[in-house]
Amino acid sequence: MDSANQSRDMLGRRGLTRVAEARTILLDRLDNLQHPTERISLGDALDRVTAEPIVAAEDLPPAPRSTMDGFAVIAADTFGATQSLPAYLQITGEVLMGTPPEGCLERGSCYRIPTGGLLPDNADSVVMLEHTVPVDETMVEVVKGIGSGTNVIKTGDDIRAGVQALSAGHRLRPSDLGLLAGLGIDKVVVYRRPRIGIIATGDEIIDHRQPSAAGKIRNINSVTLAALAKRCGATVTDYGIVSDREEIFFATVARAVEETDLVFFSGGSSVGVRDLGERTIERLGSPGILVHGVTLKPGKPIIIGLCNQTPVFGLPGHPVSAMVCFDFFVRPAVRALSGERAGDCHPVPSISARLMRSINSAAGRLDVIRVRLDRDQGQWRCHPILGRSGAISTMSRADGYFLINEDSQGLAEGEQVEVYIYQ
Amino acid sequence: MDSANQSRDMLGRRGLTRVAEARTILLDRLDNLQHPTERISLGDALDRVTAEPIVAAEDLPPAPRSTMDGFAVIAADTFGATQSLPAYLQITGEVLMGTPPEGCLERGSCYRIPTGGLLPDNADSVVMLEHTVPVDETMVEVVKGIGSGTNVIKTGDDIRAGVQALSAGHRLRPSDLGLLAGLGIDKVVVYRRPRIGIIATGDEIIDHRQPSAAGKIRNINSVTLAALAKRCGATVTDYGIVSDREEIFFATVARAVEETDLVFFSGGSSVGVRDLGERTIERLGSPGILVHGVTLKPGKPIIIGLCNQTPVFGLPGHPVSAMVCFDFFVRPAVRALSGERAGDCHPVPSISARLMRSINSAAGRLDVIRVRLDRDQGQWRCHPILGRSGAISTMSRADGYFLINEDSQGLAEGEQVEVYIYQ
Repeated sequence: MDSANQSRDMLGRRGLTRVAEARTILLDRLDNLQHPTERISLGDALDRVTAEPIVAAEDLPPAPRSTMDGFAVIAADTFGATQSLPAYLQITGEVLMGTPPEGCLERGSCYRIPTGGLLPDNADSVVMLEHTVPVDETMVEVVKGIGSGTNVIKTGDDIRAGVQALSAGHRLRPSDLGLLAGLGIDKVVVYRRPRIGIIATGDEIIDHRQPSAAGKIRNINSVTLAALAKRCGATVTDYGIVSDREEIFFATVARAVEETDLVFFSGGSSVGVRDLGERTIERLGSPGILVHGVTLKPGKPIIIGLCNQTPVFGLPGHPVSAMVCFDFFVRPAVRALSGERAGDCHPVPSISARLMRSINSAAGRLDVIRVRLDRDQGQWRCHPILGRSGAISTMSRADGYFLINEDSQGLAEGEQVEVYIYQ
Repeated sequence: MDSANQSRDMLGRRGLTRVAEARTILLDRLDNLQHPTERISLGDALDRVTAEPIVAAEDLPPAPRSTMDGFAVIAADTFGATQSLPAYLQITGEVLMGTPPEGCLERGSCYRIPTGGLLPDNADSVVMLEHTVPVDETMVEVVKGIGSGTNVIKTGDDIRAGVQALSAGHRLRPSDLGLLAGLGIDKVVVYRRPRIGIIATGDEIIDHRQPSAAGKIRNINSVTLAALAKRCGATVTDYGIVSDREEIFFATVARAVEETDLVFFSGGSSVGVRDLGERTIERLGSPGILVHGVTLKPGKPIIIGLCNQTPVFGLPGHPVSAMVCFDFFVRPAVRALSGERAGDCHPVPSISARLMRSINSAAGRLDVIRVRLDRDQGQWRCHPILGRSGAISTMSRADGYFLINEDSQGLAEGEQVEVYIYQ
């Protein structure tokens, strides 16, 4: 066990691992896992991750096209043309959309051409309609000289045959699907979606569809965490609410580890259930527990384990803590399991907002401060939402959050903070 | 027709409408549309929009619970307790998870309680385990005095019965689903997903699954725009590639307007097809064309219409232009049709990056500059991607974009810009 040498305090708790370090410990283990692949159609490929590089098999566009309505010309015929000294060109043809132009352009002549039209042979540029004056049906004045290639998209200007269109490990966005469509590629090999197993535990937990009962509390975490998992592109198997009796609990987690790619359970914030989670992860396989407890608030009591290549998370029972742990640890793990390349560019956008009240923070922990946003004179303002990590309504009221770093003891009213939006 | 009094230039083109004004003209028309509703389960409700306010029918939590492992006490029994002068309390019971505590607490006594345990009658607070010292099985020393309510989440602390949990017109995020689960609400009334009809036109356009042919170009726009529409939570009907012969085209757009909530066609950038699009929208119903041409680059030739309550967009044929028009006009319209309240908080997060080369811009137009991002010494840098709006590869290579406003003539290398990320 990686953290075996961590010291324990008088209650048997280990020292806390810093958030960034905990994430590195986890993600380093997931780096070289093999991911199964499948071959799917473009219509199903949005947000899936490419499993191999995709190379253009043909030039795009396959032939030179006009980018303007006007006249296809030989640029040299327009050199020096001005309003007062126009060039006169014979109109010897017309390009129709969708059919190759007939004949070829002679010196001193031009073809009418619409935007998107294929250039006739010999033409090297297009004079915009706006830079011409009609003389009659067969002749036009060009009032501006243009260079070769003007208003033309050339063969392969978009992408050339043989060039890599997309790398492996790339999440397919709408524009990427468009590029593949342009290249005539309809089938792509992608990684299978990560499968996530969700388990709720605790004898006090009942399904949210059940009537309330004394001493019972409804299962919030399976609902919020399943929604977060779907957002990551995972498929979710809900193993329901499981007794915290050791053998029943162990058997369910073991089955989930067998059947899915990433498992988390939540519900036990009491010491007893935390210990059960810890023992379960240790029994399930090597290397077992990687991290137990992080410098994160809310979210401190998370357990992060790896059991024979399957990440297993023991998430805090408090709904807000569990969601914060998902953001900081589960989502990056799901992204790693989805095959998306860490090397890819993953900026996390934020908005800058003025903090509307001072917030204290204990040094040595990363604080996640939920906020409500509003606008004042065109500037964003953020109002911290105070409330316990057990209160899901505080999360529902939040527009986003900002962070107070481990080395800070708080932020003062009026400071600008970077707010990450809860989508 | 709203823009009938716009002047036309010598080519019969109207003046351009500013982007913000065009958006207002469109969205004002969509403000008071009626949206059909449906009743669905929580498991299907992620990202759907509530059609009515949702009020808590019960308190959450329904009874006071401990937020710590420790001892449930009457706070007054601990007043003044310190390490050197502890309070001694009799342990007269134990709270078990999931069952109501038996008996009630007498002065001078306490119950063992786990995190999440229900408070016994008379108890008003919980002493953390860390602030106690065991004496024997029946007695504990409390070494810190606490106030009433300490380490307790009280009845209704999360949300009270009768309080509005969510407003109407609210898009349901994971945390909102959690709040509803906590309240025992499984069925929600939401607006139906907007239905979007997509039409490609142009005799040169072929389906992306067809082999390349001289003069033909593959349909990129229906693929990219369908993916963008799905991202907005819409359902998409693809009406395929339609001839630009007037009656065939008109019949297809008319059918799409009949069958869906928002229609767009794309493919015609030539004057002829633009005129066809304009005539079609005018024929389809009142008020017809709202905007024709905007101060946006790329995206200038967009036509925005409204035909008997159905927004109809003529999008530019160039793939990048069409996507930009989607971002600026179609997406806000889809959001309006989804029933999401404009009053809701919709910050658009961005990242701040250093511009790596100077960019000129014509005054009077809003420039959308696509960029590639990278990092240098912890700072984001953005590299403008130069390339035509017909080149889909430029969009696929882009990580995001920044804007150069209508009143600016460009930005200099080294300036900080706000980059919006293409997800």
